[in-house]
Amino acid sequence: MNTYGNLFRVTVWGESHGKALGAVIDGCPSNLELSEADIQKELNRRRPGYSIFSTPRKEEDKVEILSGIFEGKTTGTPISALVYNTNQKSKDYSALKDTPRPGHADLNYILKYGNYDYRGGGRTSGRTTIGHVIGGAIAKKLLNNEKITVFGHSIKIGKINGDINYYDNLYEKLDNNKNNTNNNYTDKIINDLDNNPLRTLSTNYKDMEKYVLNAMENNDSVGGVVELIVLNVPQGIGEPLFNKLNARISEALMSVNAVKGVEIGRGFEVSELYGSENNDEYYYTENEHENEHEGQINYKSNNSGGVIAGISTGTPIVIRVAIKPTPSIFKVQDTINLKTKTNSKLKIEGRHDPIIVPRVIPVLESMISIVIVDLLKEANKI
Amino acid sequence: MNTYGNLFRVTVWGESHGKALGAVIDGCPSNLELSEADIQKELNRRRPGYSIFSTPRKEEDKVEILSGIFEGKTTGTPISALVYNTNQKSKDYSALKDTPRPGHADLNYILKYGNYDYRGGGRTSGRTTIGHVIGGAIAKKLLNNEKITVFGHSIKIGKINGDINYYDNLYEKLDNNKNNTNNNYTDKIINDLDNNPLRTLSTNYKDMEKYVLNAMENNDSVGGVVELIVLNVPQGIGEPLFNKLNARISEALMSVNAVKGVEIGRGFEVSELYGSENNDEYYYTENEHENEHEGQINYKSNNSGGVIAGISTGTPIVIRVAIKPTPSIFKVQDTINLKTKTNSKLKIEGRHDPIIVPRVIPVLESMISIVIVDLLKEANKI
Amino acid sequence: MNTYGNLFRVTVWGESHGKALGAVIDGCPSNLELSEADIQKELNRRRPGYSIFSTPRKEEDKVEILSGIFEGKTTGTPISALVYNTNQKSKDYSALKDTPRPGHADLNYILKYGNYDYRGGGRTSGRTTIGHVIGGAIAKKLLNNEKITVFGHSIKIGKINGDINYYDNLYEKLDNNKNNTNNNYTDKIINDLDNNPLRTLSTNYKDMEKYVLNAMENNDSVGGVVELIVLNVPQGIGEPLFNKLNARISEALMSVNAVKGVEIGRGFEVSELYGSENNDEYYYTENEHENEHEGQINYKSNNSGGVIAGISTGTPIVIRVAIKPTPSIFKVQDTINLKTKTNSKLKIEGRHDPIIVPRVIPVLESMISIVIVDLLKEANKI
Amino acid sequence: MNTYGNLFRVTVWGESHGKALGAVIDGCPSNLELSEADIQKELNRRRPGYSIFSTPRKEEDKVEILSGIFEGKTTGTPISALVYNTNQKSKDYSALKDTPRPGHADLNYILKYGNYDYRGGGRTSGRTTIGHVIGGAIAKKLLNNEKITVFGHSIKIGKINGDINYYDNLYEKLDNNKNNTNNNYTDKIINDLDNNPLRTLSTNYKDMEKYVLNAMENNDSVGGVVELIVLNVPQGIGEPLFNKLNARISEALMSVNAVKGVEIGRGFEVSELYGSENNDEYYYTENEHENEHEGQINYKSNNSGGVIAGISTGTPIVIRVAIKPTPSIFKVQDTINLKTKTNSKLKIEGRHDPIIVPRVIPVLESMISIVIVDLLKEANKI
Repeated sequence: MNTYGNLFRVTVWGESHGKALGAVIDGCPSNLELSEADIQKELNRRRPGYSIFSTPRKEEDKVEILSGIFEGKTTGTPISALVYNTNQKSKDYSALKDTPRPGHADLNYILKYGNYDYRGGGRTSGRTTIGHVIGGAIAKKLLNNEKITVFGHSIKIGKINGDINYYDNLYEKLDNNKNNTNNNYTDKIINDLDNNPLRTLSTNYKDMEKYVLNAMENNDSVGGVVELIVLNVPQGIGEPLFNKLNARISEALMSVNAVKGVEIGRGFEVSELYGSENNDEYYYTENEHENEHEGQINYKSNNSGGVIAGISTGTPIVIRVAIKPTPSIFKVQDTINLKTKTNSKLKIEGRHDPIIVPRVIPVLESMISIVIVDLLKEANKI
Repeated sequence: MNTYGNLFRVTVWGESHGKALGAVIDGCPSNLELSEADIQKELNRRRPGYSIFSTPRKEEDKVEILSGIFEGKTTGTPISALVYNTNQKSKDYSALKDTPRPGHADLNYILKYGNYDYRGGGRTSGRTTIGHVIGGAIAKKLLNNEKITVFGHSIKIGKINGDINYYDNLYEKLDNNKNNTNNNYTDKIINDLDNNPLRTLSTNYKDMEKYVLNAMENNDSVGGVVELIVLNVPQGIGEPLFNKLNARISEALMSVNAVKGVEIGRGFEVSELYGSENNDEYYYTENEHENEHEGQINYKSNNSGGVIAGISTGTPIVIRVAIKPTPSIFKVQDTINLKTKTNSKLKIEGRHDPIIVPRVIPVLESMISIVIVDLLKEANKI
Repeated sequence: MNTYGNLFRVTVWGESHGKALGAVIDGCPSNLELSEADIQKELNRRRPGYSIFSTPRKEEDKVEILSGIFEGKTTGTPISALVYNTNQKSKDYSALKDTPRPGHADLNYILKYGNYDYRGGGRTSGRTTIGHVIGGAIAKKLLNNEKITVFGHSIKIGKINGDINYYDNLYEKLDNNKNNTNNNYTDKIINDLDNNPLRTLSTNYKDMEKYVLNAMENNDSVGGVVELIVLNVPQGIGEPLFNKLNARISEALMSVNAVKGVEIGRGFEVSELYGSENNDEYYYTENEHENEHEGQINYKSNNSGGVIAGISTGTPIVIRVAIKPTPSIFKVQDTINLKTKTNSKLKIEGRHDPIIVPRVIPVLESMISIVIVDLLKEANKI
Repeated sequence: MNTYGNLFRVTVWGESHGKALGAVIDGCPSNLELSEADIQKELNRRRPGYSIFSTPRKEEDKVEILSGIFEGKTTGTPISALVYNTNQKSKDYSALKDTPRPGHADLNYILKYGNYDYRGGGRTSGRTTIGHVIGGAIAKKLLNNEKITVFGHSIKIGKINGDINYYDNLYEKLDNNKNNTNNNYTDKIINDLDNNPLRTLSTNYKDMEKYVLNAMENNDSVGGVVELIVLNVPQGIGEPLFNKLNARISEALMSVNAVKGVEIGRGFEVSELYGSENNDEYYYTENEHENEHEGQINYKSNNSGGVIAGISTGTPIVIRVAIKPTPSIFKVQDTINLKTKTNSKLKIEGRHDPIIVPRVIPVLESMISIVIVDLLKEANKI
């Protein structure tokens, strides 16, 4: 269905070329300070036109809150917020009606529902993630009050591996700051990422950029890998068998259309490790120092990525997701014509991102934030 | 919690050294022929002692059905089934009580619940998957009636890549037989897999075996990668946004403790593909032949792994999961002593699989079967 | 939370004096013809100003559908619809802030949430049922396609018992027409009810009217009993233990603030019957006639009210609910002042219905319609 | 389905003449002291043979806990408990197979599921409430730790109104002791009730007894009305719109097969009250005395029955339910023969309670206890 979460629930609705898109957030605690600006900030991070690599479609995506707030604070009742669509091109999309786009949901919707709003992809459009981001913005506010930070960055663009990820220099730095999310270092990372068109900290960023530009020239599109990091989640959220933190995260991230793989901690690499290499051993802090107080339980490594047996350990949560190349490309593709029942060719027109990796990052952060809030509530920690 | 599924629900319970473990299956349609033998067959596939690579612990794991069946058929009421524990070693596990095993759930449970049944790992034990397999066996029976087949095989053991997976020769053969799951070829694959100690079809199986034996000699353990294939799922199951087939599969598989990564179709490899390479183009069958009838819609490739935008396409569903090395190893490890509050050493005793990959496969198949049945019900297809 | 239903879900939001109120309907099958007029028709039935017994507040309550419809039909994606508030009095409600109204939710919200939108009662206002009616209107459309009819009528106003209910002359007439909901008789009943200010068919209607007018003169309010009838529900909806049709109906109706009691079939009267009086005996139709075909299974009576053991029998579903007198009365009442922490007096001003029975009927019909659709979906009957 | 509750979940299973009946309780906090004796105590209260008015069938109903407890305390993992059936009569029930009992679920199950375990009513049997009571016993233990008391008593048997209920002398006494559930008075009430064959405190108990005995002589059965009281529930549990405390209670109680009506507080009587009579006015305690501390907020009356707008007020919760006469009577009844497709007669044999009111009380208490615990968890109060 279109609701995500158990105790903190986000119900999303809307289509690319409908009147509006929005979300209803239920289960938000009362007395959280919340304004439209808080949500707008996150919506701007996923907005079209965000960089040279995103569609020039100029949507303002201006959010309105319709309920759930009184005198600047949440009341504990559902928060309804929406974004009116203002820039739908009125051109005829009916060509798409009969010739479904390969790699896209068109054919699947037509066959499943028998009534498909093909204008701009309707419900299958990336614009539906506006609802996710509205929910995520509110979740982030709640997490912020708990000093929990969520952020994502590109670690691979096409075939270009970034030279930074959690397990090399970023890791080094975060490790020294692991549970101090208000420090300047974390803020600086997030700010730097927002100012990079591919949301990466890699020094070989120029190679990545060249790779995408080259694909654009060829009327083609590019995928990538995003790493997501959550700092300061307390020990004990998530449940042992079927509501595991990692299972919930995987489900939430796989709920974003372009995601084809999810891994936690060392992920697929774990298959190559021996148990003795993979186990994260424990030690007590003996001498109090900067970020460790005496008697604190620590992990010598974080191969688990912050989750063991479905329960958070208290160490940074580290996730990587594979993002597929945008299916809407400008090359001629083979398809079928559902009306004439014959094989056919399709050349997609219009505005499409050559890569969705940077714009999908705020959406992924939103989904993780929603999961974390939901599980904090289940564990009575919010 | 301990219930999985919406319309087909499996509630699991039990601990490693408690009286029994079991499951209650709710939402099973009436009039399904079902006997204890159907469940026993699947339990035997995950039983300890399955191969030289599994713990010699001799559990019979004999299932009893207590409700929900009348005159050999399901009645539509909940099916309760259990396995009594018979072979618990009575030795003192109390050493573990104070020195949690690295990579294991011990510490996380102690901190979260404050009352941890450390005997054999209690609820964290692999034995809890008996419940999953009971549920999965019933789901498989239902799928079987729909001619849907689910099976898994090892494609990587430690650092040894198997020379067969869906995308090479297995693919070739399955492609020619893709939606005919009753043919001898599929039955033969499954039978061959059950007879291989590592559940693989790879011709370099001996290298894999050597790799595991070598680790065993070093008191260490090994991980791997499993590929799961589901044949003959009809188009249209799964929902667009938050109950996606791929999201549900990921959640279900990540619910198995050893899984650290899940990918669908080309998975992480997709980041390296251009859109033009990754999109699965369509064509109509023009001339009827063996497995295609005239006017049938087909995909030129199956990079999506059978799911687009959360909805099944009708092509084979292909999933890969990363399995971590067994955390219980016989090497001395660093840990802490919670009683004395000092750093400590731990040498685990007892019976532990050097690799859980082959025994986890029936569990993974079970989880996928449960998800598929649940979504078939949601789509009114069962 | 604010979502009702499992497979047909209605998520409602909004406050009395917020910007808008609305609902998101999820799980509506695709290809249902649906327009704003379908919803408006039902909203008009609960609109303020409906009769002399309802508040003269002039709200248009004009509905807008924002998503889920394409070319006049549902697409299977969520339907978002809302009503903007246009007639909020800007006067200062702050008196209420400190002196909670007896019988009202003010105090309970203040204590539970610590942030209460007291303007017009905020989330506790009867206006929140706009969301229920939006959901109910869509459910009714679906039921209409299945020839299922839902309607309610007042059978008691204050101490005046109506001289008609399901168990006397209405029963006689319905029984002869029980499963033919398209006949003129049923349509006429519903039309007559909509034209009666107290939504009753009782011939002693004038006594009821006098009773209410008398209370109004005394600055007081009046309660009543509503009977709800559902015709043509097929045998087999509802589940045996915890998702019983009657349990779900009770929950749904008790979700409407003014309801203090729910009974099915003979209800509380059943306590006075012997088993031999209460059991509904069976017979086969032997000679085909107007509304019975040969070999049809029938019930000699309908004391059960259409539900046995949680499952519909196929006979008319009959429910009665107790509606409390409007808590907002113009008499001076004792209350407390939360600011000064002293006992206090309160005289409520503004616009308030002296009786909510007639206006609550469309809301009750909506809740029942939503439940029936939800259970039809669960039983694969829609 | 067969699971009740959101955060405290009870999954029940089993049939009258199957091997066993049981329940799995999920979401019970860890570290609750719990033994089989705690559950057995409650099971004994609903056991057949409880009084002269209950079937002489001699079931021991001995409970076994199979999981979830370690060293005498809950671990936070699911608690599985069951009762083996030991006294099933092996006689041929097949007569019932073709001639469904009026007022019973036989026909509804046959038509819905097409495979009905008619032996002793199978899943429709009152024995299935063993699962409810197992869950309820654990919930009661949790409530007990919070000093919350739940108890029920008969206030009407057939046409004989008891001369005591919450709104007369019991009320007077409880009111003086309302939030002091550990006092001797409450304990004494509960003990007295358990020692009365009809679980009533009415002084006209003998008239009630005579009424039932008279019906027994006539091969008939009797219904009644039960009042349930919950003391000491804190303010603030239950949610405003769709998870209301009263809605949840109604649903839970209507989940017990014999219940045909539920009312809260003044219930149906409320229809006859003016708003000025029904509203519960507030006052501050000015002078501290026995059960009120200074500055405490109080209600002058408790017409609401402890719930306003779905949220608990902190006053005693008062509920009444209508219980129908046992449908299994020894009089000859009209029915149909499904095999011969002809009208038929039925004379039920075997052991059946002439009245289920006293035995259903522990079941009703269980359902309410489960709801209260579930909502306490949702409100973070457990």
